[in-house]
Amino acid sequence: MATGPARGNHTLRGGIDLGGTKVQAVVISRTCRVVGEARRPTPLDGGPEAVTAALADTISDAAAIAGVAPRSLAGVGVGSPGSIDATAGTVSQAGNLPGWDGSFPLAERLSRLIGCPVRLGNDVQVANRAEMRLGAGRGRRSFIGVAWGTGVGGSLVLDGRLWLGRGAAGEIGHTVVVRDGAACTCGRRGCVEAYAGRAAMELTARKRADRGEKTVLFRLMKQFGRDRLTSGVWARALDEGDAMAQDLIDRAVGALGTGIASAINLLDVGAVIIEGGLGIRLGQPYADQIAAAMAPHLFLPERAPEVQVAALGDLGGAIGAALLVGAA
Amino acid sequence: MATGPARGNHTLRGGIDLGGTKVQAVVISRTCRVVGEARRPTPLDGGPEAVTAALADTISDAAAIAGVAPRSLAGVGVGSPGSIDATAGTVSQAGNLPGWDGSFPLAERLSRLIGCPVRLGNDVQVANRAEMRLGAGRGRRSFIGVAWGTGVGGSLVLDGRLWLGRGAAGEIGHTVVVRDGAACTCGRRGCVEAYAGRAAMELTARKRADRGEKTVLFRLMKQFGRDRLTSGVWARALDEGDAMAQDLIDRAVGALGTGIASAINLLDVGAVIIEGGLGIRLGQPYADQIAAAMAPHLFLPERAPEVQVAALGDLGGAIGAALLVGAA
Repeated sequence: MATGPARGNHTLRGGIDLGGTKVQAVVISRTCRVVGEARRPTPLDGGPEAVTAALADTISDAAAIAGVAPRSLAGVGVGSPGSIDATAGTVSQAGNLPGWDGSFPLAERLSRLIGCPVRLGNDVQVANRAEMRLGAGRGRRSFIGVAWGTGVGGSLVLDGRLWLGRGAAGEIGHTVVVRDGAACTCGRRGCVEAYAGRAAMELTARKRADRGEKTVLFRLMKQFGRDRLTSGVWARALDEGDAMAQDLIDRAVGALGTGIASAINLLDVGAVIIEGGLGIRLGQPYADQIAAAMAPHLFLPERAPEVQVAALGDLGGAIGAALLVGAA
Repeated sequence: MATGPARGNHTLRGGIDLGGTKVQAVVISRTCRVVGEARRPTPLDGGPEAVTAALADTISDAAAIAGVAPRSLAGVGVGSPGSIDATAGTVSQAGNLPGWDGSFPLAERLSRLIGCPVRLGNDVQVANRAEMRLGAGRGRRSFIGVAWGTGVGGSLVLDGRLWLGRGAAGEIGHTVVVRDGAACTCGRRGCVEAYAGRAAMELTARKRADRGEKTVLFRLMKQFGRDRLTSGVWARALDEGDAMAQDLIDRAVGALGTGIASAINLLDVGAVIIEGGLGIRLGQPYADQIAAAMAPHLFLPERAPEVQVAALGDLGGAIGAALLVGAA
């Protein structure tokens, strides 16, 4: 028996997508089938310790659905925003997570809570790897992944490999599309994220509402029991024909189209995969709009890349995080 | 004797850099030493046929200085703007060359005139390859080359290899830095090249001069016997403290800094090499200014890349073109 394969549960892997709004966890089988999933809101108070506790609770929920305890998983991968040191197991500069100042030893703390090994990866990169291996990127050698969510992240797959540069490549959200333009959540000006990141869009919506402009956005937010304009709130406001929501989304699409077109002019790859909460919620019709917004800026418009929404949907980030764990 | 090495001259390679303003030719030895060089203005009339004749004359001049006939060279490489089909030996979409509409079989025509094989390559890519092998890129695994000249081109070296994408990667000059901004020579708006390409800068200078603004630029142009604002004219005008020239160069530096910073945010490579006629003429002080203009837009300013002017100077393009020819 000691020489047989690892018993049952150790072939299961956990994955957590840590977002600015929500924590999404999955448990996947050896063949990458999702056998359990759970979701909780990202805590707004309590800083990294509170976030770590929420991660532990969410993966425990997912594991329970899969019929196992978290400690019997082969491991848990976490896709996190910010700057990741995978070897040290730390997360720093996670500006989209409230109260996350300095460097925090997330891998060690979470591992202690759930009783199994934890591996960290960049949120956008792990989502991208999942799309590359299991989703819209399958069979493609090169593409740009764009994560349209609280912020705007990106990742580059060049000739079948994730391009990391010196470790921080992919910040397509901080492509400057309007010099001296709108203030960005990163502290600079005119970045794609200043127009298209959900956090920045919410700030703009609030300003405009405070000035008396009409919108259903904040009514819907309360109705949904949220304290932020989530992707679901934006989608519903668009469905209801809200003019301000439509205007802000159009502005976001325009900025994304401009920034992505510049990246295509630079890299000349044949595909763009739209990921992230807003991208997935708004789906292919908006991916098509981004493609249309790219067209006027493409150096070779006759060779426009395909623009596709991520095939793994909402779970891509968590599934990609699970792939950080070597299967038992 | 028939089985001995090719005699003498066949170890020499020719290289031609075809620019919007001038044709630069070199003959290099087996060890890449320049043994002959010559330069002629790019003909403004007569289209591709006239340009081809000028290429033949210029390489013949360089070969004569090296003491050989062009037909005894192992081959001649040409670095050309536009879209290159190296296999077919054709150049198309060369918007910076006057009268170059449609596709032209440059390799075959030039080969017929000079009596040796001709290989084509993209002007910016060959300059970059020369810098990579022999110049400022030596020992670097990854960098962005930016050719600041009549237009603004670029090329990417990623992990020791030139990244071509689907064949046209590197168009950093068509990064959009101001949405709906200045008209670009490519027909679009707000590209880096609309502010920093010498052709676009000259159009702006003319408009401002026509409106009565003072400048020495056009007086210097005549004095130099030129019919365009060459890099030398710009450099002299700066030396003379011309306010308009300084303003337009500052604007160019600002646009370059913004576009290159966005590319660094995306690719996270550790070095930028400034090439091209203006870049090389203005030299390291202006490369330093570009670095300063990048700083406010860098996502990780604490890891700003080195910004260096090309080490091979004016001859990098022609030397790189010669490297297209397999040594005998």
